[in-house]
Amino acid sequence: MRTTATGRPRLEERKRPGNTARDEVLDAAAELFTTMGVAATSTRQIAEAVGIRQASLYHHFRTKNDILAALLSGTVVSSLSAAHQLRDRPEPAVVLLHALCYLDCRLLWDSPWNLGILYLLPEVRDPQFDEFHRQRTELRAAYRELAERVVADLSPPAPGCLDVTPDDDAVFRMVETLPNLRADGLGAPDQPARTADLAVHLLGWRGDWAALRAASRAVAAELAQRPVDEVTSSTVAP
Amino acid sequence: MRTTATGRPRLEERKRPGNTARDEVLDAAAELFTTMGVAATSTRQIAEAVGIRQASLYHHFRTKNDILAALLSGTVVSSLSAAHQLRDRPEPAVVLLHALCYLDCRLLWDSPWNLGILYLLPEVRDPQFDEFHRQRTELRAAYRELAERVVADLSPPAPGCLDVTPDDDAVFRMVETLPNLRADGLGAPDQPARTADLAVHLLGWRGDWAALRAASRAVAAELAQRPVDEVTSSTVAP
Repeated sequence: MRTTATGRPRLEERKRPGNTARDEVLDAAAELFTTMGVAATSTRQIAEAVGIRQASLYHHFRTKNDILAALLSGTVVSSLSAAHQLRDRPEPAVVLLHALCYLDCRLLWDSPWNLGILYLLPEVRDPQFDEFHRQRTELRAAYRELAERVVADLSPPAPGCLDVTPDDDAVFRMVETLPNLRADGLGAPDQPARTADLAVHLLGWRGDWAALRAASRAVAAELAQRPVDEVTSSTVAP
Repeated sequence: MRTTATGRPRLEERKRPGNTARDEVLDAAAELFTTMGVAATSTRQIAEAVGIRQASLYHHFRTKNDILAALLSGTVVSSLSAAHQLRDRPEPAVVLLHALCYLDCRLLWDSPWNLGILYLLPEVRDPQFDEFHRQRTELRAAYRELAERVVADLSPPAPGCLDVTPDDDAVFRMVETLPNLRADGLGAPDQPARTADLAVHLLGWRGDWAALRAASRAVAAELAQRPVDEVTSSTVAP
């Protein structure tokens, strides 16, 4: 049983990480969904894992799918916010794209539960997940836009270089392999930065990788404070 | 209701594509698993979709998970066979890797049901799927080996080129994004060849892409006859 880090007295003992009962429900559901499966998990089991009554759970979420929708949106919303903030920054596009990859991958890589494995579930095709799909589509479009700027900056392209187009979704696809690596127990500890390197390399960028990483890390650090923490607080332990 | 292409008389009308009752069960299960979800599908529903009794289904498969295991293995076994045959061929490694990607992607892209979306299901972590995981791990290793040969052939690497290592699993990761693209309704019609191009580009290969594609296609055509048809007959309509 964890104790509160601040030592502030609490009315009740918390069974799960999270600042609020809602956060505890999200954490418990994320664990059950990613280990038992969504269909095999009931709201009763989620309530039990939190140590609350099912009726209390319904105070926060109407249905199991409402919980799943909140969790899935939580995996993209802060990356989307980062993408919006990055768009108008003065740094070269390759730095911005690297930073977006890095932040997005960190979320997929370091979050306590590997929620990315749930993206392709047939159940998630239901219209009640439209908001999540809209957000994910918007994030994909942001990757396309930045990737296009990176490729345009490469002119003239090196001889023998493939013409990577926005429709290839090359960077977004590399980022979304992190749930696979995680599920398979593979990948370097610095996988988020490494995947950002690979994505940019895939577009044909060549240069000083240490300098690119440093510039990307500086931009990411500026952005990370707000959006990453926002998501962290809704899905993850403090 | 489909009629038999050969016009040969049949004892009973087939409801599903497939040469045998076993194939029909696999096809029906693949449809239900990828559209309704695995947990939401019962063997009774599968039997109904084929038009046979549940008892007849148990003649071919003991459990629902046996069906799922057969389907999952069916998505990797022929690529694995292709990888083994490619290994000792005389063509340059880049041609062999391109051909392996192409064949593997074709299977993921053109099969009637997008079974790749089931790879990461929590249910599939169960030991009864060990054979599938073993096969997929072996396929990943074959990609690593070929990718290493491609990178070694690049020496000296172009200036500013990233040192892509076997641990990056860069090619395998790109290939396994096809279920995502398919689920999202994205990707070019020639996605298998395009993904093979992107994978090789990611490793840092530069050269005559039309010549590479032609050489790869020739190798793939030689191999395709046996292994791809083998898988086709067990999961797909003739």
